Amino acid sequence: MTDRAVTVSQAGEAAVLEVLSGAPAQVGNDPVGNGDDAAVLGPASATVVTTDMLVEGTHFRLDLTGWADLGRRAVAQNVSDVLAMGAECSRILVALAVPGGTTMGEIADLSEGIHAEAARSGAVVVGGDLTSADVVVVGVTAIGTLPHGAAPLRIDGARPGDRIGLTGLPGRSAAGLALLLAGRPEGPLHRAHRVPETPIGSGTAARLAGATALTDVSDGLLRDLSGLTRASGVGADLDTAALPRDPQLRTAARVLGAPDVDEQVLDWMLDGGEDHGLLGTFPPGVTVPEEFTIIGTTREGPPGEVTVDGRHRTPGGWDSARGAN
Amino acid sequence: MTDRAVTVSQAGEAAVLEVLSGAPAQVGNDPVGNGDDAAVLGPASATVVTTDMLVEGTHFRLDLTGWADLGRRAVAQNVSDVLAMGAECSRILVALAVPGGTTMGEIADLSEGIHAEAARSGAVVVGGDLTSADVVVVGVTAIGTLPHGAAPLRIDGARPGDRIGLTGLPGRSAAGLALLLAGRPEGPLHRAHRVPETPIGSGTAARLAGATALTDVSDGLLRDLSGLTRASGVGADLDTAALPRDPQLRTAARVLGAPDVDEQVLDWMLDGGEDHGLLGTFPPGVTVPEEFTIIGTTREGPPGEVTVDGRHRTPGGWDSARGAN
Repeated sequence: MTDRAVTVSQAGEAAVLEVLSGAPAQVGNDPVGNGDDAAVLGPASATVVTTDMLVEGTHFRLDLTGWADLGRRAVAQNVSDVLAMGAECSRILVALAVPGGTTMGEIADLSEGIHAEAARSGAVVVGGDLTSADVVVVGVTAIGTLPHGAAPLRIDGARPGDRIGLTGLPGRSAAGLALLLAGRPEGPLHRAHRVPETPIGSGTAARLAGATALTDVSDGLLRDLSGLTRASGVGADLDTAALPRDPQLRTAARVLGAPDVDEQVLDWMLDGGEDHGLLGTFPPGVTVPEEFTIIGTTREGPPGEVTVDGRHRTPGGWDSARGAN
Repeated sequence: MTDRAVTVSQAGEAAVLEVLSGAPAQVGNDPVGNGDDAAVLGPASATVVTTDMLVEGTHFRLDLTGWADLGRRAVAQNVSDVLAMGAECSRILVALAVPGGTTMGEIADLSEGIHAEAARSGAVVVGGDLTSADVVVVGVTAIGTLPHGAAPLRIDGARPGDRIGLTGLPGRSAAGLALLLAGRPEGPLHRAHRVPETPIGSGTAARLAGATALTDVSDGLLRDLSGLTRASGVGADLDTAALPRDPQLRTAARVLGAPDVDEQVLDWMLDGGEDHGLLGTFPPGVTVPEEFTIIGTTREGPPGEVTVDGRHRTPGGWDSARGAN
């Protein structure tokens, strides 16, 4: 075992990759796991693949996020995209850039988070890449499979009259970030911000139930709903009274001295990003899986137009190129 | 068409992703291409996947590398890893981080390079991710397939007595970088540094010929040969007289005022990285594909021990965690 205080520069690539690779990852009938030019996966009826990057300063600050949580979060947000296709995640690849002064202890913590979250998702880490940079960048590629004959849940399949369902409690990550930035003592909302709880199994449940479209809420509920309805060529009406509410959001808004507590809670729920709940549309007649709360309906209308309690509202939330707006 | 001077911050994520996505990429029987949570690929007998990141300041400087070349290079180095498994590349995913002040013209150039190199490799771009950062980071995931029943070419399959074959001319990228850093006028070696010419088809040729192991030369010929032989549990003897030589290396060494021209050329050939030629081992009796030059043989011996013209030599080249050494 390498001393945790040894830096990445001192230890060299092979030692870092050894820590990152974790337990040997030869999966079932995969011909090649870690340690070669590329990983080779066994036969699949259809392969789902997605990639995402977390950049220090943009997505996280190392004084606010620990290395293990960083690893979990990087994996979780990619797994979430695989789930949102109605698939299950099976493999993870990690491309990592770190300053040379990063210690092997920090790498070990990061690796622990990556492997723990992969395991929670039923996936294993099959490859990676390491390079140096002035800031920490964690790039993850998640790969999943669909059973033979299963159609993926696209973002553009919603039809007028579908019920809109959402897993999880929206706004917890945004409230957690606000508490964190205000220096409030550690609590469950902090944790929700640091590592989203991806709804393992719920994407498949939506697919089996007969959902018409599915996406994950990464940029904010309203923005992602607007994106799904725009892609599908429909409008939508959202009912805030139906939104599943974490009572801790009110407490957080009060603690932070929000001028209008209800408004603050609503902002977090509608525009807060990174909750990574699943947002799906279900046609009349199908049984909506119990983990989905019905929060509105789709309708004929200008593509992407969403009303909230009958009024038009422009999505806030996160635009990756512009930053928060 | 967006004005090329508009910045990424001004244009917003959707506009940037539109430029990056290029022509619609619905591939053959792929159920879902660009624009959803994840891409979905059609059935394959075995899937090869690899990921790699280029970081500004570590791998490139924007004053020395244009955006189009950056896109080509990011794709080429990942395609190279897929080829090195004896597979052909079919799909590319791109995760991009750029400062908000990056112009849409620069994004368009980057996109052009990405798509051009993907097309050269027979692959299409099926997904991506965009985020902001203080430096430019281009993360690429390359996916390839192996025909039904084909065994991937692993890095650990070499046996004593195999002939060692290499495609391309080693050292050109390193010599090009040296010329570039010295401010010498543009020439073919500069180009070799900016965009490696991946040997499309040669990985498959090596597999069909019956190669025992294959890898790509990214960190330096000696370092990568040492890696292959270490993984395979064999030693190797390299014959520098057999190395395919680009005569321009001598010219470059002279122009740069190297104290010992031959020594400089040898250093570039043995320790220069990023040529992305393919390095394979071929057992006695098989016909080596003509694009591979035989440069030595494997033998019984301490795993990874490589002699050069009968003398031990420690690999220089590139260690991702330590930097050049």
